[in-house]
Amino acid sequence: MPLGERYGGDKSESRYCGVETDFDDDMPNLLSLNIHGGFDFVIATLHAGFSSDAQMDPNYRPSLVDDDTSRSHALPFAGSDLVLSPSQWSSHVVGKISSWIDLDSEDETLRKDSEIALKQEIAWASHLSLQACLLPTPKGTSCANYAKCLNQILQNLGSMQLWLRIPLEKSEDDTDASSPDFMGEGHNDSWELWNSFRLLCEHHSQLSVALDILSSLPSASSVARWFGEPSFLTNARGYPCLSKRQQRLTTAFFDHSIQIVISGQPVHNIPLGASESNVDNNAEGGWRHPLKSYLDYVAFLYQKMDPLPEQERFEPLMDNLEAQTYETFEKDTVKYSQYQRAVAKALVDRVSDENASSVTTVLMVVGAGRGPLVRASLQAAEETERKLKIYAVEKNPNAVVTLHSLVKLEGWEERVTIVSCDMRNWNAPEKADILVSELLGSFGDNELSPECLDGAQRFLKEDGISIPSSYTSFIQPVTACKLYNDVKPWFLFPHIKSHKDLLHFETAYVVKLHRVARLAHTQPVFTFTHPEDLSKTSNQRYKKLRFDIPSDTGSSLIHGFAGYFDATLYKDVHLGIEPSTATPNMFSWFPIFFPLRTPVYVQPGTPLEVHFWRCCGSTKVWYEWCVTSPSASAMHNTNGRSYWVGL
Amino acid sequence: MPLGERYGGDKSESRYCGVETDFDDDMPNLLSLNIHGGFDFVIATLHAGFSSDAQMDPNYRPSLVDDDTSRSHALPFAGSDLVLSPSQWSSHVVGKISSWIDLDSEDETLRKDSEIALKQEIAWASHLSLQACLLPTPKGTSCANYAKCLNQILQNLGSMQLWLRIPLEKSEDDTDASSPDFMGEGHNDSWELWNSFRLLCEHHSQLSVALDILSSLPSASSVARWFGEPSFLTNARGYPCLSKRQQRLTTAFFDHSIQIVISGQPVHNIPLGASESNVDNNAEGGWRHPLKSYLDYVAFLYQKMDPLPEQERFEPLMDNLEAQTYETFEKDTVKYSQYQRAVAKALVDRVSDENASSVTTVLMVVGAGRGPLVRASLQAAEETERKLKIYAVEKNPNAVVTLHSLVKLEGWEERVTIVSCDMRNWNAPEKADILVSELLGSFGDNELSPECLDGAQRFLKEDGISIPSSYTSFIQPVTACKLYNDVKPWFLFPHIKSHKDLLHFETAYVVKLHRVARLAHTQPVFTFTHPEDLSKTSNQRYKKLRFDIPSDTGSSLIHGFAGYFDATLYKDVHLGIEPSTATPNMFSWFPIFFPLRTPVYVQPGTPLEVHFWRCCGSTKVWYEWCVTSPSASAMHNTNGRSYWVGL
Repeated sequence: MPLGERYGGDKSESRYCGVETDFDDDMPNLLSLNIHGGFDFVIATLHAGFSSDAQMDPNYRPSLVDDDTSRSHALPFAGSDLVLSPSQWSSHVVGKISSWIDLDSEDETLRKDSEIALKQEIAWASHLSLQACLLPTPKGTSCANYAKCLNQILQNLGSMQLWLRIPLEKSEDDTDASSPDFMGEGHNDSWELWNSFRLLCEHHSQLSVALDILSSLPSASSVARWFGEPSFLTNARGYPCLSKRQQRLTTAFFDHSIQIVISGQPVHNIPLGASESNVDNNAEGGWRHPLKSYLDYVAFLYQKMDPLPEQERFEPLMDNLEAQTYETFEKDTVKYSQYQRAVAKALVDRVSDENASSVTTVLMVVGAGRGPLVRASLQAAEETERKLKIYAVEKNPNAVVTLHSLVKLEGWEERVTIVSCDMRNWNAPEKADILVSELLGSFGDNELSPECLDGAQRFLKEDGISIPSSYTSFIQPVTACKLYNDVKPWFLFPHIKSHKDLLHFETAYVVKLHRVARLAHTQPVFTFTHPEDLSKTSNQRYKKLRFDIPSDTGSSLIHGFAGYFDATLYKDVHLGIEPSTATPNMFSWFPIFFPLRTPVYVQPGTPLEVHFWRCCGSTKVWYEWCVTSPSASAMHNTNGRSYWVGL
Repeated sequence: MPLGERYGGDKSESRYCGVETDFDDDMPNLLSLNIHGGFDFVIATLHAGFSSDAQMDPNYRPSLVDDDTSRSHALPFAGSDLVLSPSQWSSHVVGKISSWIDLDSEDETLRKDSEIALKQEIAWASHLSLQACLLPTPKGTSCANYAKCLNQILQNLGSMQLWLRIPLEKSEDDTDASSPDFMGEGHNDSWELWNSFRLLCEHHSQLSVALDILSSLPSASSVARWFGEPSFLTNARGYPCLSKRQQRLTTAFFDHSIQIVISGQPVHNIPLGASESNVDNNAEGGWRHPLKSYLDYVAFLYQKMDPLPEQERFEPLMDNLEAQTYETFEKDTVKYSQYQRAVAKALVDRVSDENASSVTTVLMVVGAGRGPLVRASLQAAEETERKLKIYAVEKNPNAVVTLHSLVKLEGWEERVTIVSCDMRNWNAPEKADILVSELLGSFGDNELSPECLDGAQRFLKEDGISIPSSYTSFIQPVTACKLYNDVKPWFLFPHIKSHKDLLHFETAYVVKLHRVARLAHTQPVFTFTHPEDLSKTSNQRYKKLRFDIPSDTGSSLIHGFAGYFDATLYKDVHLGIEPSTATPNMFSWFPIFFPLRTPVYVQPGTPLEVHFWRCCGSTKVWYEWCVTSPSASAMHNTNGRSYWVGL
């Protein structure tokens, strides 16, 4: 049974909890005890050899078997796939591959035995239609042969997942990870080990990591890298006596869609019912699973987490501006109350209290949609007791219909003139004191706000005010294995469908950034200010940025850049999604993700140098980007060949 | 006129010599003087602005031009494309782009002017159908914006080549290139600068480098990296007083298909005819080009080079074994005389002088082809006065026809039995003392020699001898821009045709390694020995190698691995192409090249760790390979999906 649901949580993301079991040849009983004991699945040994008298032999190795014995092939321990029903196998059992397997041993016989055993056990698990197998931790400092075998297996695997068990270890000297002899000299950093595996297997979507949480944890920056990795599973030993840091880590992982497995023997002598205050006891007939207290503790940690913030639960449709879309965006009350505050401040600055009743301010909303900025502006006028005349310019005739009924319904006819027109073609009858627009994209200038406002500037008085008055885009480098995999199909040869697939890697995506490791603080990229001296400036931009990834992070792999914006609406009223200053509870924008065609590996102490261009042609606007340190990448999106916005 | 031809040289690779000219507005005269003066082409300024009185203005910048002037666009200096004929433009003129251009200046105005001027000048050169333009050296430490502009231009360039001028500079502290603050901190290593350009422009085939040879040269390892780069052009100042090292460098570059440009003013006061001893003087009517002595000197350097070794001139067809192919391979007399030596030594070891007339040695040639090994074996028998009985086993019935006539023609009927049969199906009437084969590929075991000889071993006596008795493959990391470009089409998005293109990157190629920089000494990979205890061994292999690139090389880019073999035919008689021990004047094998899908950038002092596997399935044999340091590559050729040899 899942760990419970958090308020507002997505049911598809319920967290499950499994248990690692010792070897047992009575699989039906093993499964029954643990499922009734409250766990969702068991991790069980599937496979082992038999000695000649058909007894289990933990020391079985393929090479030791006498060639004459007809029963020589490693036999599945379960004896038959019939001991459980197909749905029991596939829903409740994760296969545990023999832990003696060591594919990078110096001992060639052990290496060959390991390869045979690994292939046989996974083939058996596949035959049982298991959802996943847990693979043993790579031993020693090299993993190339292990990766080579797994990669061969992954090419023909069907749908089963492989979970590679990796200890979340403190590297031997966590602060000295930048020393040059660190590299290539043994993977004492477990993230390095996983990273090599993942690169060698080309980010295969069926390979994920199973993290063992041990008693000593590495530095926070170092752990944070794991948040960018595919669905992992935490193996928590030592519950329910987790340190504060282990608790924080576990809940942080919950936020990144992981599953939990409890492993090992109970080490605490807990009286029955000791930690049951807020958890049901599911044990039947008084029997209680020996690890039940640990399970309860994990469920408790999960359930006590803060509810998801509102914006995490909303996911607007970005593809077109149909009625539903207007509806969704108009619900972003935080955004419009910021606009209202900005307009109010501008009105007060524009017209003194003495002139409030005599002077009428002319305000134009360019891109009025169904009227939310008109409403916010009128409310600002009421609040400040200023007289206001509004031109609401909108090019979408369908939105204009709604706008007309709104004006009639609210009785705004005297104050609001609706202009059904593309702002680029409009001849305004008078000039405006204030120009209000909401043309910003996730990256600020990525939806032609600069070009549109440059065009609209001819309606604005010399000393007029634009709201927003400026906006800046920001980026930060991220590990984002999930996002990368989503755009990656071309990377795996067999999946290549067309030239178009390749272009995905030069296209920025607006996305929720859930499973992402943010590797450095954001830095500003491009700034636009309105109004602007149009004779002097262009909307082309070029920015070179240098990120220094904290040295206690260890090495990292950059899949791309998360992009954000922050806008100054007017004076101190701002609006934005840049993480350190983000306006709370606003859901109109998700971050944007600029992928790299080839992930960039950055060693500790090496700066990451990035270049972004905003380019303008006669018919389109686009970005190009590249990395020049640690080494040069390809130039992305040359001439806007893959991704652009049409003028 | 070309610099002359070397004995055995390929006419398509004649080396040309150009001259860099000062600005001159009389292009017909400029061209005529220099072509008559003996040069093949001129590098000439194409383009400049005019001041208002239509005089040339070297200080012209696009941003300084008054917008009202109708003649404001930078006008081509030549005034019209009609001053030269189209063929003169395209055969004899290389455009020189304004040297003031600085696309990475901190000064935004200069940057924008540079971008406009670069695009205009290249557009004009394109209009003139020039074969190439010489681009100014990047200034300062950053080149990302220059690369971005060039990359945009390259996407729509037609067929013109762009030559980027790069000084072959000694880095400030050549020995300290491995210091950590070297990276990202200014490109004082000019190869770094070029490498960034090339990566940012995705190895574009129309972008090459023009190397300026200055008075002080970097270390030999550092210079050697340039041998792997695309066709470059050496700009030699200071002739004819080159130091020994400069002379060696120039001739080394000749071997890598470069062109030469002489630049600058004559600095030597050489009396007419001083260096003409062995060169014709082409000056007409007594006029002599002021740089003629320099040209003569370069031609002299070229002509005095050692002739190409024989194997460089031979290029056998590798695609099928038709008569022509047998013909070509049989001409490799060096190879067969080594076989003869090996057989002779084996015969003497096998049969003592006392028994020479009584004991007949049984020798089987497996894969006899048209008989060269039969001939070599018989000659060895004659030479050692041993009695020999030969079975010549050959599966190609067409070759067997020739073999029969050869035996008849030479009168070998008594001594040679021809077996028209696949050696795998043959039931030999007796066992052999000596098994002779020539099944080796460029990488030793890459043409199934191990599998074939394991099969043939059943004909061999327990104490019998296999010739070859063992063979080892070798690899070394190389920069091989040309090879990489040949297999690269998928890398440039617009050229992607099909899934098949991608597989080129997982296929090893047998190639001449001309434009290649060998970055480290070779290391052995796999060894096979015959005969072998077949019950104990398999032909699968795994080898992990670590290459330490000499630290005075600076950074380097690895496009793949050059592969070789060395075989022990018998005792001290060996045969091979491994560079340090290669059998001289043998032309049957070219090296093999294992490409990397993404080139690997290696910083000074960082080891390169490589893994190679030889894998055997039931129907095929293949290699897989990967890099794990400095960072992990993808696994190449998983399950032999792209490249294999069928059993």
